[in-house]
Amino acid sequence: MDLILTFDYIGTLVFAISGTLSAAEKKLDLFGAAFIGFVTAIGGGTVRDVILGDTPIAWIRNIDYFYIILLGVIITMIFQRAVQKLRTTLFLFDTIGLGVFTMIGLEKGLSFGLSEPIAVMMGICSAVVGGIIRDTLNNEVPLIFQREIYATACIAGALVYLTLRYFMVMPEITQIVSVAVVITVRLLAIKYNISLPKMSIMEEHK
Amino acid sequence: MDLILTFDYIGTLVFAISGTLSAAEKKLDLFGAAFIGFVTAIGGGTVRDVILGDTPIAWIRNIDYFYIILLGVIITMIFQRAVQKLRTTLFLFDTIGLGVFTMIGLEKGLSFGLSEPIAVMMGICSAVVGGIIRDTLNNEVPLIFQREIYATACIAGALVYLTLRYFMVMPEITQIVSVAVVITVRLLAIKYNISLPKMSIMEEHK
Amino acid sequence: MDLILTFDYIGTLVFAISGTLSAAEKKLDLFGAAFIGFVTAIGGGTVRDVILGDTPIAWIRNIDYFYIILLGVIITMIFQRAVQKLRTTLFLFDTIGLGVFTMIGLEKGLSFGLSEPIAVMMGICSAVVGGIIRDTLNNEVPLIFQREIYATACIAGALVYLTLRYFMVMPEITQIVSVAVVITVRLLAIKYNISLPKMSIMEEHK
Repeated sequence: MDLILTFDYIGTLVFAISGTLSAAEKKLDLFGAAFIGFVTAIGGGTVRDVILGDTPIAWIRNIDYFYIILLGVIITMIFQRAVQKLRTTLFLFDTIGLGVFTMIGLEKGLSFGLSEPIAVMMGICSAVVGGIIRDTLNNEVPLIFQREIYATACIAGALVYLTLRYFMVMPEITQIVSVAVVITVRLLAIKYNISLPKMSIMEEHK
Repeated sequence: MDLILTFDYIGTLVFAISGTLSAAEKKLDLFGAAFIGFVTAIGGGTVRDVILGDTPIAWIRNIDYFYIILLGVIITMIFQRAVQKLRTTLFLFDTIGLGVFTMIGLEKGLSFGLSEPIAVMMGICSAVVGGIIRDTLNNEVPLIFQREIYATACIAGALVYLTLRYFMVMPEITQIVSVAVVITVRLLAIKYNISLPKMSIMEEHK
Repeated sequence: MDLILTFDYIGTLVFAISGTLSAAEKKLDLFGAAFIGFVTAIGGGTVRDVILGDTPIAWIRNIDYFYIILLGVIITMIFQRAVQKLRTTLFLFDTIGLGVFTMIGLEKGLSFGLSEPIAVMMGICSAVVGGIIRDTLNNEVPLIFQREIYATACIAGALVYLTLRYFMVMPEITQIVSVAVVITVRLLAIKYNISLPKMSIMEEHK
């Protein structure tokens, strides 16, 4: 479906920009920034496909991803300040990417005949692992472990997808609605400043 | 063999609890804690199977692992303080898991026709890589690189396994004895406070 | 080609030494040092082969790598101070390894029928990912993201390789020249203290 591929490309571009930008705060050099930009964009899908044994993986077979990521990296390097000022726009696209990646990963899991919980895990993996690798390479605890409804939005979208599929709603509608749910949940969570509870035990005396 | 599978499940459960608990000290949110719980439990076997090319990997094909890990994650979230107080019990199960994972990885390596040193590496990988990923995601130098006889116990158990196998001892006995060796070595090392020497050179002046 | 395999082994040895040495500065124990030594030596090729789906990977099929790495780890442990004093020699061999790994990864990518940009990525991956994992396990931002012409030398060598190949120069000459380019670029960069520009935006007020 063309719409999905378009969103997939937009998500890839935005994830590449987010990775490249993150390197700026750590004062990495251009190679470091480019490396993290690439890994952020392809990390989630790569880990998913490696686990599924679906290799060589998509970005190796479809050169489009390479040029899209390269574009994101170069734009970010040249227009660093301008890109940073577009944060709100980027945030919106990032959220679209989140929804699309979740849905693509989930569909891929189902098409491999996985049970539903594992297919949902594949969806979440696609959406969040790139960002986790980005933060780990930047020597930080992954952002999405700490604040914000992020993965939770993915899970909500995935459950809606499975529900619609169960009732045999048309695939295109199922796709669009589930992506919309991811986006809506995240935007609402940001607007109303909702986040997940934290683990809170104190360390015991040793 | 049923006994092995039972221990495998126990090891998986305890590793999931250990990962989830570790997230509490970093004040991660519930998703972060669950993510680290999962990765700690399945990380070692996943890396082993990916290296061996044995995909899609076990926890994707056998949904039991998913529910066992989910159970461990949820128990830990609800009963955080109680779980922490069970540290000694958990430690014992963790050690059992260590022994069983070592033996399972070693057997898998041998069944793939690997040479013995590489099969031992697969055993160690199964047992320790989950914890290494857990600590890396928590932005810490992996605990098992720093103190305690941990991997050393795995190596001892693996060598005993290979020795018994060489003398064609019954497989069940070989399995049980080698797991027992891992457990015994680790418990003795803890009791007598034995640890590996450290690398000790000082940094040179630059 | 024997020369290539010899250099591959030298590169593996030196990468193992560099990983083991790095653990000393963190005061890891012997297992931690050995683990990081192994991962530094095999990490790049492993990630490349997993992405390509070429499993079980080379060091599992060819036991030579295991013994070479073990040798590097043990030498470093026993002669820590002496090894550190050989830094200049090690640096030279490390640079040779960098060139050879780049070329091997690039050739492997091409032999898998990958497009040229992706094959270059496979070359860079082979050369740099081991060091990136080493630094991540040591809880540091990867060195090569921060200073030095390192990956850039790999890219230069890869482009020369592709150019010579395009003009159908003899494979052996193409191999040797491209490795020599990697080495030369890195040595010149060190000598004249050239490094890549850094990403430099300041964090905005929040």
